[in-house]
This record gives sequence, structure tokens and C-alpha cells, in this order.
Amino acid sequence: MSTGIEIIKNPSGITDVPGFEAAGVACDIREIADGRLDMGLIYSKERCSTAGVFTKNDVKAAPVILGQETLNRDKGIHAVIINSGNANACTGKQGFVDCEEMLNEGCRKLKIGVDNILVASTGRIGRLMPMANIKKGIALAVEAKSAEAKSGHDCATAILTSDTCSKLFSVKFDHEGKAVHLGGIVKGAGMIQPDMATMLAFIVSDIKSSSTLLHSMLSDAVGSSFNSISIDGDMSTNDTVLLLGNGVSGVDLDLGDGALKNKFLKALRLVSSHLAEKIVADGERITKVVNLSIKNAKEASDAEKVARCVANSLLVKTSWFGSDPNWGRLIDAAGYAMVGIEVDKLDVYYDDILIFQQGEYVESNLLKCGEIVSRRKFSITLDLNIGKSEFEMLTTDLSMGYVDFNKSE
Amino acid sequence: MSTGIEIIKNPSGITDVPGFEAAGVACDIREIADGRLDMGLIYSKERCSTAGVFTKNDVKAAPVILGQETLNRDKGIHAVIINSGNANACTGKQGFVDCEEMLNEGCRKLKIGVDNILVASTGRIGRLMPMANIKKGIALAVEAKSAEAKSGHDCATAILTSDTCSKLFSVKFDHEGKAVHLGGIVKGAGMIQPDMATMLAFIVSDIKSSSTLLHSMLSDAVGSSFNSISIDGDMSTNDTVLLLGNGVSGVDLDLGDGALKNKFLKALRLVSSHLAEKIVADGERITKVVNLSIKNAKEASDAEKVARCVANSLLVKTSWFGSDPNWGRLIDAAGYAMVGIEVDKLDVYYDDILIFQQGEYVESNLLKCGEIVSRRKFSITLDLNIGKSEFEMLTTDLSMGYVDFNKSE
Repeated sequence: MSTGIEIIKNPSGITDVPGFEAAGVACDIREIADGRLDMGLIYSKERCSTAGVFTKNDVKAAPVILGQETLNRDKGIHAVIINSGNANACTGKQGFVDCEEMLNEGCRKLKIGVDNILVASTGRIGRLMPMANIKKGIALAVEAKSAEAKSGHDCATAILTSDTCSKLFSVKFDHEGKAVHLGGIVKGAGMIQPDMATMLAFIVSDIKSSSTLLHSMLSDAVGSSFNSISIDGDMSTNDTVLLLGNGVSGVDLDLGDGALKNKFLKALRLVSSHLAEKIVADGERITKVVNLSIKNAKEASDAEKVARCVANSLLVKTSWFGSDPNWGRLIDAAGYAMVGIEVDKLDVYYDDILIFQQGEYVESNLLKCGEIVSRRKFSITLDLNIGKSEFEMLTTDLSMGYVDFNKSE
Repeated sequence: MSTGIEIIKNPSGITDVPGFEAAGVACDIREIADGRLDMGLIYSKERCSTAGVFTKNDVKAAPVILGQETLNRDKGIHAVIINSGNANACTGKQGFVDCEEMLNEGCRKLKIGVDNILVASTGRIGRLMPMANIKKGIALAVEAKSAEAKSGHDCATAILTSDTCSKLFSVKFDHEGKAVHLGGIVKGAGMIQPDMATMLAFIVSDIKSSSTLLHSMLSDAVGSSFNSISIDGDMSTNDTVLLLGNGVSGVDLDLGDGALKNKFLKALRLVSSHLAEKIVADGERITKVVNLSIKNAKEASDAEKVARCVANSLLVKTSWFGSDPNWGRLIDAAGYAMVGIEVDKLDVYYDDILIFQQGEYVESNLLKCGEIVSRRKFSITLDLNIGKSEFEMLTTDLSMGYVDFNKSE
């Protein structure tokens, strides 16, 4: 059955959506004059209703705190400035001064109000922003912004840190003869776990909607996408997911019926989950992507706890790296979630092959499971058989390359 | 001030304590005829009051479940059989049959009752015990047992898995002219985190005491030693800490005054914390040992949460491996404990050097901190400055060698 949602081929992200412009320029935020794109801009002439989901870390970067305040005022957003190379986190009072200066500089160049602009930053923690370069970058980005596909690609590139490739995904659907578009870009790599660690995601649409409605839709979509992935279990100071709607399509979500709301939510979930998958697949030096499914737990929160214990266990992750069908480590990790697993009811599968059935090892399937765990993508299912709740997440192995890559900045 | 507690030089662990015998023999539990010691025995002719602290993992190995039942009956213990090479975990019904057979075989050879013996197993999960070899090992161990120092050393060696060295610690103190001894052995290595993952510890004493009193002392000592260390954050199916008292010293803890109880507890804490330190220092392929101290939190449980987030963060651990004074990752990890850290009150130290003061980076100290983090042992302090509670733990870095070592069994 067709959902009526069309995936846009060769997406350009932000610029796939009517009324949005984008830019990505180089201003040497890393203070190495290598011409790397490091300043992105998203702009809409029409003011956008905007929803944001932010890190729950106690230690929030200046742009996160100021961004939350701006969204709370709900005056509508025209622009988002995004820089990579410096997170402006743990930068004390000066960090706030610098972030405000970025907001003001953006306002001046774009000729908009200070309530109508957001900043998102990612990169190294604890270093002051190189403000001369930053200001140069803002000016260049405002100058460069356009609705061309190339600008969308440049913007998607400018927000990257240790990612190896840009990540874009766009869809469209028809509503009573009018086209509605959603385009998204994301940066991820290391430190991905619940609550969207070191992740920036920007999804824009030409839907018309209140910020409140956008927020409830975004919260739903984030739960089953960006919050259901884990690479190393860390969570950052800067995580931000934004959803902007500029209304250019003429389709009004608040006035629409249930069918329209469902379709928009479906489209938003599709964009979010595809972007989340791209993050996992581009985790730092990973060699395996694992779809982990916990079934028939007593409560959904129990299933989630088990999933996170398994997904974040170093011994489990290293065994995946080694292509070792080490089901014992899976069960051990599931057990220390301490949600009342009964080992004599537990079934464990690699893909659809049983390796552990109701407390007993199915040794005859070991070779098959060894073959599965040596693939780049596979799934693991733990069926607890003690309830009816489930949780699914995407995770990765832990490689020697990850340790080498992260041993210093 | 002298505590009156004397550390025994060149300890032999179990056999440092009057009335205890030990053995360590080879019976090829790994099914490789390499002569490796893999069966240990602790024996006391006098029946011992015994306290045990076990894994909280939902998935408990057969010897853990049967051991808990035996201790609940509290009939006094004469012997503990300990094997390495096979954990007898996730082995279904046959695992229980095998463990009972081990208990019965021990009873027969030692001529004691089935309520008076315990089994502890460590090693690979999910493989049935090679019972013919196990039985041969029990017979050999009973034959070999003695009060000689060599037997104590053999026993300490027989319980090891991926450890690189045996771990023993013994003390004695005087009470009204009578000597009281405590001797302990432990195995650890990978998977060490709270709740004593993949750890077996056996502490024996010639004190006379009820099991109840021993249990309250052991719980206290475990909290500040074996439960305050972390290598990779995993917790195993087999963790067991036992404390046996055979009464041979003639000193009665139940009848003693507060001073005696304090002294015994101090001695027990000393043995426990030294054994715990030996475990951390021998973590799998570690290159750094870090004393992590969280100060002035609102609640002790908050301080512990922060400590565990920092100690288990892959990004923190890899930066230690790389000798990178990456205080930003420390603060990020502390923040996602989500206990209400206020970054503008936070101080962070490497040893006694401030790197972050009340929300501001102390850049002038970076070189000194870089020198500290490149040592094999150093301390890190996060002073939250929002309360009066604290928590301290010992942890390690995460090396490329760890990943390589654990990628398959």
C-alpha cells in the first residue's frame, strides 16, 4: 500500500522545500586556513513556526540555552546560523556574550529581529569562539544564501564535524492538490545515544502550523528516531533538533483533519528515522550496524533499559567488532538491566536464527549465527516472553579505530 | 597514629589465617591440556560462619543461586570449591545438575555435609561444565590441600581468568593478647563495575562471629571497595564475595565491644580496598588507573551517578588512554548524569591542579594537567559546590588493546 509520501531523489535538504534558502561557507573556525566549510545558514523570507528538542545534559552550551529562550518567546523564526569546529560549551560568561554577538550579527546582515533567529554550534568544548572569523563567516553566508541545490548541499556539509559524509533526506506529499515538502539535514558521528548526543538536526517544511502542534509532532518523531540510536552512550552539551514550518505550501496543519495530521507525522517520522540511520551508519570508525529489538517485556521502559544495557556494553560491542556470536555477553548485559528477566523464558536470535531458547543454548545454530554477526548489518532480538512491551534501537560495534580516533582531539 | 593493624608481607592469602587450608590444581577445565591451575579449594576443619554478597544481575549462574540458598540455611561452611575456565552460567537445567554434582563430589571427598560447602565458578558463559575433568580436579584439590604458603598461592592462581597476576592481601591485629588474622584472594580483570562484575573474592578470618554480624561488616566493606571500581561498566552473572570466620583465634566479635568491632571492620575494609585496587590495576589491557572523586554534591547518590557517568564514558576513557587533558569530556559526562550540576559553580582538578574554575577554563594550567594525565596513576576531582556529599571510585582508561583483547573469546 502506498503511503502517498514520495522520497525525493538526490535530495538537497533545506533547498528541497519552497521558500527556504541555505548556505555553507568557510571561515576557518578551527583556525586552520584549509577552506573547510564551517558556517551554515538556513533562511526563510516567510516567518516560520518552530519547534525544538534539546539536550537534557545539565551542562548546556550557550546557544542551546539562548535558543530555548527564543523559542519560548515564539515570535517566529527567519534564520538559523550553524557553525562547526567550536561548540561554545563550557565557555563561561564570554560564551554567552559571543553567542549573543552571533545572533546580533545575523540580525544586522539579514535585517531581521533578534527574536527571529537561532544559533546552533558544534565542535570542540571549552574554547572561546574565534569571533572575527565567525563574523566574517556570517557575512559570507548571508551573501551566499540561495534556493539552489548546491547551497543546500553546502549547508549540509558546513555543519559536519567528525562525520565522513553529509546527510540529507527529503520527502513530499500531496494534500488536496497542494504539495507539502519536508527536507532535513543532520550531523552526528560519535557520542550518539539517547537524548541525541552531539547531534544537530534541522528539518524544514512548507507546512503552515502553530509551533505547539509542530512541537508535539517533533517530540513523537524524535522518540522513535534520534532517541533510539546509540554509538558510544555519551550525550553532548549541544544536541539540538529543530523543525521549521514556513507555510508556503498553503496547507494548514492546525485546520487540517486527522488524515492530514497523520500524513505529516508519517512524513516527519520518515525523514527523522532516515536521518538517524545515516548517523549510526557514519558512527566513528564503526564496522557494524546492529538493529537491536527487545520483545515481550513487562513494560516499554523495561525493554528500553535492556536495550540500552546491551547496546552500551563494551563487551557486547567488542564481540560484534570481532564477529564473535557471543550470545553469553548479550544475556549478561540484559541481566544487569535488572528489570526481572527470567532466563528460562528468554529467547535470543541473530537475525531469525535462534541461539538461545527458553534458557538453553542452541549449539547447532552457532555456525549460522557466526556467519550473520560477520555481516556489516544484522539484527539481534531478545524475546523476554514475560509481557507485551517492546523497544527497538539501532546501534554499532566498538572498534579499535574508535579508540584510536578519540584518544585525543 | 597507628591503627594497630599489621599488613602481612609476602602474603599467601587463605593460608595466612590459622585453621584454613587451601589448594590449587590443574584439571583442564578449558579442555586444553596445558597444566594451567583451574581448580581451587578453601577448607577449614572448624565450621565457619559465612557471609556472601552476590551479583544483582537478573541472570545468575547456577553456583550463585545454589550458594545463596546454602548461606540462607546458615548451617556453617567447611569448604569452598572454586573453578576457573567455565562460569556455569546460561547453562539451563543441566547447569544446576552439574553444580549439585560438584557440591556432592566435594562432600564425598571432604566427608562433610552438603549444607557445609559452596561452589564458585568463573570463565566462559553458556558452555556445559566438563564434569569428568571437574571431578578429577575436586579429588586432586582435596588431596593437595594444606596450610602451606604454596597452597595459598596455588589457590589464588587457580581462580584467575584473564588476570595477569594473582592477587592476595592479608593483615593481622592483636586483641587482648590474641592475634586475629584476615587473608583474602580475588580475581577480576574485565567487566568490573558496581556490583562487582566478573569478580570473585574470598576473605577468611580466624575471628569468631555470627554470620549476621559478618554480613553487615562485609556489606559495609564491599560498598567502599569492590562496588566502587569500574573498568568497562559491565556486571557479570557470577560475582561473589565471601567472608568466612572459623573462630580459631578465640576472639568473639559478637561478645566484643565497639572497639573490637571497629578494628575488625577497619581490617576488613583494608583487605577489601587493597584487593579492589589490585583488580583495577590489572584491568584488561589498561594503561591508566584513575582515582575519581566527586565532591560537594547534594546527595551521595548524585555524587555516585556523576562518578559512574564519568568513569564509564568512552570518550573520557579514550582521552585518558591518549593522555589528553580533555576536561570538556569530563564535564559533558558529568552533565548527563542529570543530577542538577550548575556549571558556573563547578571546579575540576587533575591531581591538585585546577583546570576549570566556577564555569571558566583555567588555560594557564593546561600544560601541567597534560603532564599529569600522561602518568600511569592520577586523580580527577569534580567539586560540584552545591552540597556536602561525596563519592570516590577507582577506574581505568579504555585502550585499543582492550578492544583487541575482547573482540572474541
